[in-house]
Amino acid sequence: MSKVIVLSDAEVEKVLDEKSVIAAVEGAYRQKSDNRAAVWPMVFYEFEPGVADMDIKSGCLEGDNIYGLKLVSLHVKNKEAGLPELMGTTLIFNMKTGEPEALVNAGYITKLRTGAAGAIGVKSLARKDSKELFVIGMGAMVPFQIAATLISMPGIERVTMIEPVNPEKSAGLVDGIREIVDTVMERSGIRRTAVLEGISSMEEGVRRSDVIITMTPSRKPMIQKEWVKPGTHLSCVGSDMSGKQEIDGHIFENARVFVDDLEQAVNVGECEIPIKEGLFDKEKIVAEIGDLLNGKVKGRTSDEEITIFDSTGIALQDLTVAALALRKAKDKDMGCVVEV
Amino acid sequence: MSKVIVLSDAEVEKVLDEKSVIAAVEGAYRQKSDNRAAVWPMVFYEFEPGVADMDIKSGCLEGDNIYGLKLVSLHVKNKEAGLPELMGTTLIFNMKTGEPEALVNAGYITKLRTGAAGAIGVKSLARKDSKELFVIGMGAMVPFQIAATLISMPGIERVTMIEPVNPEKSAGLVDGIREIVDTVMERSGIRRTAVLEGISSMEEGVRRSDVIITMTPSRKPMIQKEWVKPGTHLSCVGSDMSGKQEIDGHIFENARVFVDDLEQAVNVGECEIPIKEGLFDKEKIVAEIGDLLNGKVKGRTSDEEITIFDSTGIALQDLTVAALALRKAKDKDMGCVVEV
Repeated sequence: MSKVIVLSDAEVEKVLDEKSVIAAVEGAYRQKSDNRAAVWPMVFYEFEPGVADMDIKSGCLEGDNIYGLKLVSLHVKNKEAGLPELMGTTLIFNMKTGEPEALVNAGYITKLRTGAAGAIGVKSLARKDSKELFVIGMGAMVPFQIAATLISMPGIERVTMIEPVNPEKSAGLVDGIREIVDTVMERSGIRRTAVLEGISSMEEGVRRSDVIITMTPSRKPMIQKEWVKPGTHLSCVGSDMSGKQEIDGHIFENARVFVDDLEQAVNVGECEIPIKEGLFDKEKIVAEIGDLLNGKVKGRTSDEEITIFDSTGIALQDLTVAALALRKAKDKDMGCVVEV
Repeated sequence: MSKVIVLSDAEVEKVLDEKSVIAAVEGAYRQKSDNRAAVWPMVFYEFEPGVADMDIKSGCLEGDNIYGLKLVSLHVKNKEAGLPELMGTTLIFNMKTGEPEALVNAGYITKLRTGAAGAIGVKSLARKDSKELFVIGMGAMVPFQIAATLISMPGIERVTMIEPVNPEKSAGLVDGIREIVDTVMERSGIRRTAVLEGISSMEEGVRRSDVIITMTPSRKPMIQKEWVKPGTHLSCVGSDMSGKQEIDGHIFENARVFVDDLEQAVNVGECEIPIKEGLFDKEKIVAEIGDLLNGKVKGRTSDEEITIFDSTGIALQDLTVAALALRKAKDKDMGCVVEV
């Protein structure tokens, strides 16, 4: 008989802030680099390709004394029934005893930890004097990319964004995103000073930016190499499945490339297609981001260099943030305790 | 926000009976044979070999409209802290929507479903006139093997059993097992009529039996081929990990062999070592047990034949039984409902 704490999405939202999540995700990347964490093989199953599937990502983190898994399901037809298309559930266990400790809704955590990932790439690899951020994608994950990046890079003055499928709608979507960005930043005790703008020209967005974050489910490159200014950093966050690609593979040719997990990046990340097309060699991946955070490798080597962080999303992000939510919920006596 | 029902081991014990579990496990095997169920790749990780490990078994069952996973952990040092060495947790989801439905303690279910597996092998493959059952192993899983087999084979008159490591202790362990067997059978509305006996000679036990069930963590064969009577059926239930072996590999040479899952049997089941030693060819496995239950293949072909059921334990058993517990708990308004 174990006591398990169950945390709903609303409870997670009450206890977590993006700034703490960034620190937790950095900690997970560092533990991985120190061999104090492991990512286990992903289980993926398609009930009906593109319509219904599920994946189980799992792993362990010594520093958090946990192991566990996140199961994410996609059921496109849920829309008709008024249910979310994507649902995620995280289950964590005590690493020393194997006891189940918490069942946590993974929805809000996924947004926070994915935002943290993009921002950690920016903070570690972008030029310190970066002022212009361009975000491709205007979906539910995007406000968290923006908030996390503004928290990590207070020098950013303007964020432009584009809805790549319907670029003419970009301007109209900004207000909704701004509201969430402001809320997320305020919960971290930080007031936004950057201007947020929606634009309709992909080329213009790329040409004027110091930092680019891609956060879409695209399966074909949306930006061309010749648009990218020297010194630009790109955090590619959308590609997390074989066949997905957001940026021109040629951008990899002279870029300094980091990943969250070597195996995942090569198989399902933004690196996948450039490698398969022979435009990039996996041996040229400098390192996993945790090695950079731990000072084992050098990040950006010049102000002219293009840098890329290929963030595929690893279980350790979800697990460390679920553990953080659990600790905070316990402190505040929140969550439902059940015996299992 | 999904409503999840949490069932503790005590609650599972209140709602489930072995007879219903046998029917459910047969249903899972049949669905697998009909391609209406899938077993997904197992995730296995050793924190410290032999001391601490965990595995995640997962899959889906169309007929139950569920998918999910069971995570089982082994932490040998838990004994010192007064915690169980083995702990298991099952999480099930609605297959049509992906919503989490239940978090269920897997402890009692594992005993019931493993007992059911051994008994289904016996019922489908043993001679109908079998009277003598011999069980090797006297651990916590054994009463369920015995009860499920007596429920399935009312003609069995005597059950002998042996504790293979300390055979002289066998007789003294019978009372404890008898008590659990009687309770498990009574919950299925069946009174035990067979005699239960502990014996100290492995050879004697094998020589006099019509049916043998092996339920140990042995890593070397405990019974020799020349002891086995013509017409004997063996349900080998203990081997579930590479390196485990309970019976002489030569017994496979002329036996009619069925398995629960081809891949698992060849990699981690009783078949593994005979195949690796060249004593048995995996092409000679007749079929998975679900094909037999569905009448796609013939079972025993003569009264003289040796039959073997290699039961490695598959996620579908755990999932279908957890779904059964969930339905019964809902009917009885039991379990703790939480929002996640």
